[in-house]
Amino acid sequence: MGDAAEQAAELARGVLAGERRALARAITLVESTRPDHRAAAAALLAACAAPGRQALRVGLSGAPGVGKSTFIESLGMRLIGRGLKVAVLAVDPSSARTGGSILGDKTRMDRLSREPGAFIRPSPSGAALGGVARRTREAIALCEAAGFDVILVETVGVGQSEIMVAEMTDVFCLLLAPGGGDELQGVKRGIMEIADLIVVNKADGDLAPAANRTCADYAGALRLLRPRPHDPKGFPRAMTVSALAETGLDAVWEAVVELDAARRARGWQAERRREQAVRWLSHELDEGLKAMFRADPSVSGALPRAEAEVAAGRESPSAAAARLLSLFRGGAA
Amino acid sequence: MGDAAEQAAELARGVLAGERRALARAITLVESTRPDHRAAAAALLAACAAPGRQALRVGLSGAPGVGKSTFIESLGMRLIGRGLKVAVLAVDPSSARTGGSILGDKTRMDRLSREPGAFIRPSPSGAALGGVARRTREAIALCEAAGFDVILVETVGVGQSEIMVAEMTDVFCLLLAPGGGDELQGVKRGIMEIADLIVVNKADGDLAPAANRTCADYAGALRLLRPRPHDPKGFPRAMTVSALAETGLDAVWEAVVELDAARRARGWQAERRREQAVRWLSHELDEGLKAMFRADPSVSGALPRAEAEVAAGRESPSAAAARLLSLFRGGAA
Repeated sequence: MGDAAEQAAELARGVLAGERRALARAITLVESTRPDHRAAAAALLAACAAPGRQALRVGLSGAPGVGKSTFIESLGMRLIGRGLKVAVLAVDPSSARTGGSILGDKTRMDRLSREPGAFIRPSPSGAALGGVARRTREAIALCEAAGFDVILVETVGVGQSEIMVAEMTDVFCLLLAPGGGDELQGVKRGIMEIADLIVVNKADGDLAPAANRTCADYAGALRLLRPRPHDPKGFPRAMTVSALAETGLDAVWEAVVELDAARRARGWQAERRREQAVRWLSHELDEGLKAMFRADPSVSGALPRAEAEVAAGRESPSAAAARLLSLFRGGAA
Repeated sequence: MGDAAEQAAELARGVLAGERRALARAITLVESTRPDHRAAAAALLAACAAPGRQALRVGLSGAPGVGKSTFIESLGMRLIGRGLKVAVLAVDPSSARTGGSILGDKTRMDRLSREPGAFIRPSPSGAALGGVARRTREAIALCEAAGFDVILVETVGVGQSEIMVAEMTDVFCLLLAPGGGDELQGVKRGIMEIADLIVVNKADGDLAPAANRTCADYAGALRLLRPRPHDPKGFPRAMTVSALAETGLDAVWEAVVELDAARRARGWQAERRREQAVRWLSHELDEGLKAMFRADPSVSGALPRAEAEVAAGRESPSAAAARLLSLFRGGAA
């Protein structure tokens, strides 16, 4: 524990000094599930708490093929050009199943990954989505402590992961490809409701008219959502870009900054972060309770048999749950 | 407790005898959150366990306005006409917020509600969606014990509630209205993946061509999903009906029965119910753990302050969660 505290303190110094290697090692530490690493990670996060440092956290979601990597690279390079430090993190729901990440691969963002002011980190792997999200949230805190100005958090569009990313960012953008007129490509209303910007990519060449049509369709749909009293007029907004031709990117960034500035001025950005923190506490408690329950010796012996009884219809789920919960209460006593 | 056991035994006798008033009272009992009622409800459910009685459980989801009530009434009347006993239950996600149910209102199903072979029950109210779903699952068990042949469980289409209904039924149908060509009305892929039948309603009058087009679109989309090795060819299937003109209803019912029979023959229906039961055990454990945690005296004192600290950024969500969980572990000891 002394070692862990010392290691955490040293890492924290490196992170707060903006050293990229220290930041990478710090993120590896918070991603570890080893109990001794968890303790060190908690100490590290506490030591890195630097309330003065706040990045603009931007969530970005899009289905495979919409051009997320190209968009992030093009936008990221522009922000670097403006002298901003840019971190790119990922929440990959598939990494929970495959144990490997398809997102955040540095080779996808060739130019950006070579910039000294950029930091790209793939999604942590080998955990349930909740675990992936928790570690990403902690990586955000570390990137902020390291002095990054902008943190882009990307995810593929599969509902739950989008909501998790929206819950850890200040502004949430949904990236779309021009629609083929197929209503099945549609965006679920719930995702529309959390999007601040809908960005239709590939507005270049042959696809430009389709991109403009798709943008107009979404602009119309956004007007049908209930107004957001906290946000300035014109938000949520639908826009077109071409990440490839690098057009429209400045306008997207200006919209992000305009929305964030308006929310800060009205106190809503701080309120949003407060609500997010309390919601994350609730997630952490749920996950921790489940882990504590499964690790309980009196439960871990009885759970498989109870599942078999329930599967066979010899015990109802309610009755088995009541029995296991009282074992847990008793076992913990 | 003696009283509770006696009351439960008497109610169980009435339910097993197929008495509707006993069934209604039994469902009210399982819907109650009072601790003494919960104990009586557990005894009731145990006493009603009648493995020989199995209904065909059909889930039905659809957005407001697609004609769910008319569809259920028309289909239900046909099933009654075939000599089947039909129960209609509802999972209304909005009842969690409003404390009142918009679904299952008997006045919506005027003819069906007057049939002695039909039983219509609105969604339980005043609980979180998980609680509503649990009580509906228990109501299903009671309706089966009361000898109903078909149990229709309806919900409005809002993602999580659809998945919950699919997890408590044998066959899951998605009811749609003819599309207006607006891709935003689209159905999320995750819901397509759990639907066994996609039924496009209102295939009558002016809307018939649009209904046929929508049906063809969805049939095409269903073919793109990965095949289901357990199911016979031709499923999942897209069909059109007119609940108002009462056309296509027999074909829908025959498809439901064909799919169910094929799954039973292959052992997959029983496997599905086993998996559902284990998943419901897991839900019940999660809910029970949360309730136990919140009710713990050492937690309930500390939680509001921890939330305030986390909201103010003075403690990280992880650190606060670890602290509260160790209070819980200690408090339970």
